[in-house]
Amino acid sequence: MPEQTAGSRPTLEAVAARAGVSRATASRVVNGGAGVRPPLVDKVRRAVEELGYVPNHAARTLVTRRNGAIAVIIAEPEFRVFSDPFFEQQVRGISRELIAYDAQLVLLWVEGPGDHGRIARYLGGGHVDGALAFSLHHDDELPSVIRRARVPAVFGGRPFLPGGDGEPRVPYVDADNRGGAREAVRRLVSLGRTRIAHIAGPRDQTSALDRIAGYHDVLLDADPELIRQGDFTAESGARAMAELLEHRPDVDAVFAGNDLMASGALRVLRESGRRVPQDVALVGFDDMRTVVEAVDPPLTTVRQDIEGMGRLMVRLLMRVLDDHGANGSRTGSPASVITPTTLVVRASA
Amino acid sequence: MPEQTAGSRPTLEAVAARAGVSRATASRVVNGGAGVRPPLVDKVRRAVEELGYVPNHAARTLVTRRNGAIAVIIAEPEFRVFSDPFFEQQVRGISRELIAYDAQLVLLWVEGPGDHGRIARYLGGGHVDGALAFSLHHDDELPSVIRRARVPAVFGGRPFLPGGDGEPRVPYVDADNRGGAREAVRRLVSLGRTRIAHIAGPRDQTSALDRIAGYHDVLLDADPELIRQGDFTAESGARAMAELLEHRPDVDAVFAGNDLMASGALRVLRESGRRVPQDVALVGFDDMRTVVEAVDPPLTTVRQDIEGMGRLMVRLLMRVLDDHGANGSRTGSPASVITPTTLVVRASA
Repeated sequence: MPEQTAGSRPTLEAVAARAGVSRATASRVVNGGAGVRPPLVDKVRRAVEELGYVPNHAARTLVTRRNGAIAVIIAEPEFRVFSDPFFEQQVRGISRELIAYDAQLVLLWVEGPGDHGRIARYLGGGHVDGALAFSLHHDDELPSVIRRARVPAVFGGRPFLPGGDGEPRVPYVDADNRGGAREAVRRLVSLGRTRIAHIAGPRDQTSALDRIAGYHDVLLDADPELIRQGDFTAESGARAMAELLEHRPDVDAVFAGNDLMASGALRVLRESGRRVPQDVALVGFDDMRTVVEAVDPPLTTVRQDIEGMGRLMVRLLMRVLDDHGANGSRTGSPASVITPTTLVVRASA
Repeated sequence: MPEQTAGSRPTLEAVAARAGVSRATASRVVNGGAGVRPPLVDKVRRAVEELGYVPNHAARTLVTRRNGAIAVIIAEPEFRVFSDPFFEQQVRGISRELIAYDAQLVLLWVEGPGDHGRIARYLGGGHVDGALAFSLHHDDELPSVIRRARVPAVFGGRPFLPGGDGEPRVPYVDADNRGGAREAVRRLVSLGRTRIAHIAGPRDQTSALDRIAGYHDVLLDADPELIRQGDFTAESGARAMAELLEHRPDVDAVFAGNDLMASGALRVLRESGRRVPQDVALVGFDDMRTVVEAVDPPLTTVRQDIEGMGRLMVRLLMRVLDDHGANGSRTGSPASVITPTTLVVRASA
């Protein structure tokens, strides 16, 4: 337990006072935030962090947990973990939320399939109370590794395989990738563009497939030559853009599957002498601050609340752990959550 | 244990054959590398990685370990962990070396002093066999938290406090920060510069203090106005450079305490219309690839082998664990290691 006496613990009343809300509102936020307006949720969460408040809820459930630690597993090698700002934002949300539950975050990643045996041993060793896993790929063994270790889990992004018959489904948190992609492409159509290309993310991830589907929802008879493959890195966006310019020099708009690929595409467009947005309009996906405002022109993109999705993953996991603790066995998992996306218009389209 | 039979395990002979060295040389490298020339060490390590060789040494000691997991603790908040390439490189070295020992890396960081109690509970809970901690600060409780948890540890960078009387000293791996700083400043002196400034790193870290000491070793009577305070971030380097230009517009050279601060200083120098190196020569520290070659002009800097230091930390820790395992109690710690630095001359000085 923390090195402070029970008496020195900040109370829910103190949180409510600091946030300037009623005790009932503070309580609702601490227990999930349902029915509370987002600005108030933010105020209460800030007060929780500043005071170091540990909810009774968390204190109660921690008693039923053995380790007070949660594993965050990113199914990517170390260089991607540290270079893609997506992971940083997701982990930031998770980290902040876990602090409110006084749970220790331990971060793991996967250099390759050779790591699965070791991760299985670690998870099976009973060192963590739960796991949050994201960036799962189609052929990824990680979901079954986690299932076999019988560690309660929540996934970030919809996994490919929902689990076998009779196995409980693992809840996940995802963004409305398909709806967001539709908005991006509709924006380009509304600008009068007629040769709208798509630089797709890796087809072994559902987020990339959903964005491709959204593109096709709007452009039912899109020319396959206008669709090029990337892997969510800036370099792959540059490569795909170079291919597009070679095969379809008449391209007048690009929807890139994420902001990093859009930044690579933008570089190639400028090197080719094309003006953005006058000659080629460009839309990304993610609204990654460090990318969209660093490029010239600033990037029109589809915003997903990555940090908020990280927080939601933690809250879902805590619900799963509560169910375990209360009944000694699973009572079925909470429902998965799909969060909305928003088109953010800047100068590139 | 890994999902492979003992028979399928690559042997030390296979490693030696692949590396093109004798079995004795391969064995020496696997057991620490003493007395083997660096190019051969590299060859053997590559063969170890490519074949997935697990040293008997590691296999033996793993039996005496409970968890097969090692905690890497970065004494910085999450945003620094993910934005400073220094940590990425150090963690990369640690990660690769731990794979060779078939140990699971779990990464933790410290958002603030409020995290120490939780980390102490986690370490005390017996979930890891050892800990590697770096970026320690002067008032940092982390070393005593680790000591109290009785987890064998190795530090990255020399800690401030060597531990109380009778307590075993924790071994550390550090670069020759003072010698490297001397080389950097001597380079600027050799270019005929006479008003050489220093942008210092945070004074609660020994690496920053050692680099300041190296600066003073060469410039015994440096004007205090030429020394400005940063915090190892690019933004702080920009701020410090702006102060320098305001108070000492005659400055003709800058030794920045790391490459990130140098990149911030470079931006401000260019905005002020100064040419680098003609008007102001600039030297950094670290040789961070993603920084030194991305800036214009490319940065002259002091190279430290950050990834190699991460590997060394793991090897030292394995020696500590062996001592524990063999005797059931401590037999004294292995000696700390100071690794050499090299001046790398590019266009900025």
